[in-house]
Amino acid sequence: MPSSAKNLGYDRGSHTFVESEFHVRYAETDNMGIVHHSTYFVYFEEGRSQYMRDMGSDYAQVETSGYQLPVTEAQVRFSGSLRYGQKVRVRAWIAESLSRRLTFAYEITAGDDPEVLVTGFTRHVWTDSDGKVTRLPEIWRSHFRKQSKNPS
Amino acid sequence: MPSSAKNLGYDRGSHTFVESEFHVRYAETDNMGIVHHSTYFVYFEEGRSQYMRDMGSDYAQVETSGYQLPVTEAQVRFSGSLRYGQKVRVRAWIAESLSRRLTFAYEITAGDDPEVLVTGFTRHVWTDSDGKVTRLPEIWRSHFRKQSKNPS
Amino acid sequence: MPSSAKNLGYDRGSHTFVESEFHVRYAETDNMGIVHHSTYFVYFEEGRSQYMRDMGSDYAQVETSGYQLPVTEAQVRFSGSLRYGQKVRVRAWIAESLSRRLTFAYEITAGDDPEVLVTGFTRHVWTDSDGKVTRLPEIWRSHFRKQSKNPS
Amino acid sequence: MPSSAKNLGYDRGSHTFVESEFHVRYAETDNMGIVHHSTYFVYFEEGRSQYMRDMGSDYAQVETSGYQLPVTEAQVRFSGSLRYGQKVRVRAWIAESLSRRLTFAYEITAGDDPEVLVTGFTRHVWTDSDGKVTRLPEIWRSHFRKQSKNPS
Repeated sequence: MPSSAKNLGYDRGSHTFVESEFHVRYAETDNMGIVHHSTYFVYFEEGRSQYMRDMGSDYAQVETSGYQLPVTEAQVRFSGSLRYGQKVRVRAWIAESLSRRLTFAYEITAGDDPEVLVTGFTRHVWTDSDGKVTRLPEIWRSHFRKQSKNPS
Repeated sequence: MPSSAKNLGYDRGSHTFVESEFHVRYAETDNMGIVHHSTYFVYFEEGRSQYMRDMGSDYAQVETSGYQLPVTEAQVRFSGSLRYGQKVRVRAWIAESLSRRLTFAYEITAGDDPEVLVTGFTRHVWTDSDGKVTRLPEIWRSHFRKQSKNPS
Repeated sequence: MPSSAKNLGYDRGSHTFVESEFHVRYAETDNMGIVHHSTYFVYFEEGRSQYMRDMGSDYAQVETSGYQLPVTEAQVRFSGSLRYGQKVRVRAWIAESLSRRLTFAYEITAGDDPEVLVTGFTRHVWTDSDGKVTRLPEIWRSHFRKQSKNPS
Repeated sequence: MPSSAKNLGYDRGSHTFVESEFHVRYAETDNMGIVHHSTYFVYFEEGRSQYMRDMGSDYAQVETSGYQLPVTEAQVRFSGSLRYGQKVRVRAWIAESLSRRLTFAYEITAGDDPEVLVTGFTRHVWTDSDGKVTRLPEIWRSHFRKQSKNPS
């Protein structure tokens, strides 16, 4: 139960989300036989990257255009875990898009099993290539707006 | 400034903390030239492991004794970042120790530079080796109590 | 050019190979802006895992059946590198399958660009779940034989 | 036993080597309960970084001075493995230093246990910051020469 997401108003609700799916990598497992907790931030990043690709805003292009989106805060909550042999399905959506700040939220399931095992968010700030904080660049404005079937 | 820590009452205050220090590894840097955000959870884990070693409760022994401390929640906040060539100094302390739940909190600086660049916490649950939630094992009780110069 | 592969008789030749393709992950890049060299062994592992899945011998099932295939030797050679924004395409094949020893060889290209940027191999030994060396298990024999259009 | 090293003339012999020691990190272990094979290249990198620091040639300074040492080939051989709770001791030395090419070789033991569990090497090429191959820069010549008690 993603109470953090809930508390923070980051529940998926009617947001437009993007799904990506890939196999757990053996190198990602640990001595407990489960995926190491730090790895889920890499899974979130894959979900976020796929979101950007689907929205036509490939993060590689963001950096080429002279901007960066470093992480300023990140959180993960587990109600279960993944193991080698399972598929990771990540749902990613924009939970918040302000002039300087962008927040992605995530849900992870084991392939098409409906149970949400992991939730989390990553908060980012817009900077130029020197790391100086900037406003959401005009050229990226349309790609990074909060998207929803019934816009709020 | 770690407002999350504040909100959650996880500021260091008078807690007994353990420091560990090591070099940033080149493999930990990313295309932005900074340490990848997911890596700080590995740094936290090193700080936590050193805390346990210093308290005589090596996590390897915890698992050998038939228990585990999987992460149920984790958070990180950045007010700065680290680069290759710098030293990572992690301060770790027990912020909360309940019968089933254990929370470590962390501060990271660049070596002996006093500015705190990164803060965060990891919340853990006590389980047996099958992953079934248990109470804080009697044998580990003394090692995992919240420690403070002026105990609360 | 994969002279190592050549020297070792590990050129792809007419071997049956399996291709897998995925995006470079941002976390895999380093301060040089390229994928860190250690990551290619994780890419090889993904190629190997996909090979096993395609041959109906999922490595998760190998471990469930009481066997393991730890790496005893691994090598990589680079004539180029990959960057964030590119796709990794791995070709994996069985270069050698003896009673106790199994060798996979690999080629990596940037998506469908024909130039081979990375070559390498991983050598494995069959062990039981205690790590004791065993012979290629009967149940896995057919899955792990060297496969070729014109068998040698 | 490091036959590769032997074959390649990379046995330690009388070379000046640098030792570094650190704990196995939990995140580095895998489902087999041992350190994942790809991690040893990160351990080698730490050994190499410590070698450079001890020789007064910190790799961060190499990059600052406009040069890079990307890996062109890497190999590892295992006669054993490491687990969480153990210490990694890496011995690193320069096995070869030519005008454009630099080769480091490595041995890894479990702390002060004398048995060598892992051997390997990494071969590097000198490039400028654009990745163009260059000759060993004059300013780094003295730091990166093959060192030996009885120079060959």
